[in-house]
Amino acid sequence: MRDICAAASAPQGSFTNHFRSKEAFAGEVLDRYFDYLKELVAQALKDETLTPRERLKRYLDVITGKLERDGWRIGCLIGDLSLEASSQSQRLRKRLDSIFHKWRAPFASCIAAAQADGEVDSRFDATDLAEFLLASWEGAILRMKVERRPAALERFKTIVFETVFKKPGTPDLGTRRVSRRSAKRGANEGRARQALRGKSKRR
Amino acid sequence: MRDICAAASAPQGSFTNHFRSKEAFAGEVLDRYFDYLKELVAQALKDETLTPRERLKRYLDVITGKLERDGWRIGCLIGDLSLEASSQSQRLRKRLDSIFHKWRAPFASCIAAAQADGEVDSRFDATDLAEFLLASWEGAILRMKVERRPAALERFKTIVFETVFKKPGTPDLGTRRVSRRSAKRGANEGRARQALRGKSKRR
Repeated sequence: MRDICAAASAPQGSFTNHFRSKEAFAGEVLDRYFDYLKELVAQALKDETLTPRERLKRYLDVITGKLERDGWRIGCLIGDLSLEASSQSQRLRKRLDSIFHKWRAPFASCIAAAQADGEVDSRFDATDLAEFLLASWEGAILRMKVERRPAALERFKTIVFETVFKKPGTPDLGTRRVSRRSAKRGANEGRARQALRGKSKRR
Repeated sequence: MRDICAAASAPQGSFTNHFRSKEAFAGEVLDRYFDYLKELVAQALKDETLTPRERLKRYLDVITGKLERDGWRIGCLIGDLSLEASSQSQRLRKRLDSIFHKWRAPFASCIAAAQADGEVDSRFDATDLAEFLLASWEGAILRMKVERRPAALERFKTIVFETVFKKPGTPDLGTRRVSRRSAKRGANEGRARQALRGKSKRR
């Protein structure tokens, strides 16, 4: 709190006068952060030049760019507070839950559109897939923070868009290969492995 | 620190005498936590009565049981410290990274065994899949903490074991369905949706 007031050149009294509690302050910061994030979501998911499935990828790439700008040191405030604050503050926990609901809604619509276009498998409910995507992505960011490099983000995108969000009709090697011990690997398998290896090396 | 000393009925001087810094203390707690976790990993992944793919599932179910015991309020210390400490302490960050490497190793072996048995698609490297599994699972736990219920864990298990870790050769509806708009849904699709719905309701 002292640091925040010093950075804002404001007396501490103004701070404690304005915010009734640290929780109230954290809630305000969280809301502003989510307003900013919503803009990024809208930019990616409303991009009519892309197919719905491509828009999902775009979003993850946009966030990757922001994380790169911060040197892979800073993650997502929603994720940070989910682990730090939700066990201590009922108020922040409820606020975070409400944010997750609002956050997932445009993703669920986009995934439903991709399913309607046959771009994504329809086996799972679009809202469940949206929840899965956002939660797992928080996990990838968590791993990125520990490594301080983007490997976990690139790995996540490669694996998820070739499995959970793979285009129906694209080769599913597992169902085609007769034996894994075969010396010859399918072209796609080689590509998938190379994609991950290449990305890991590049950074 | 005061609380810890009070709980241990130890004078604060003993604490500061024993641990050179809060970092040193957190490192010690982390190591003990990981020792405990390694036992759970070994129990699940060395269970010879299960196939390698079933062992992966078993691990997630064992952890789910532990999280339930804590009323879905407490998550994973490794995840918590990854987000809280890794931006502030280089020492803890390096320790966490080393833990992730040790943690993923038995999972990579188990996944490689599942791939060798044709139980899991071999398109991706087993170590990459192990990293993906553990990081994404941390994301599911993060979401669980905010909701204080197991929906995100169950959703994660259902989706991941029917996509990333699905048994090769099991129906991939996306490649079989002609049009998503078809009124008739495949039996498996119905089952997948019902599985998620049922689990959400039960809890």
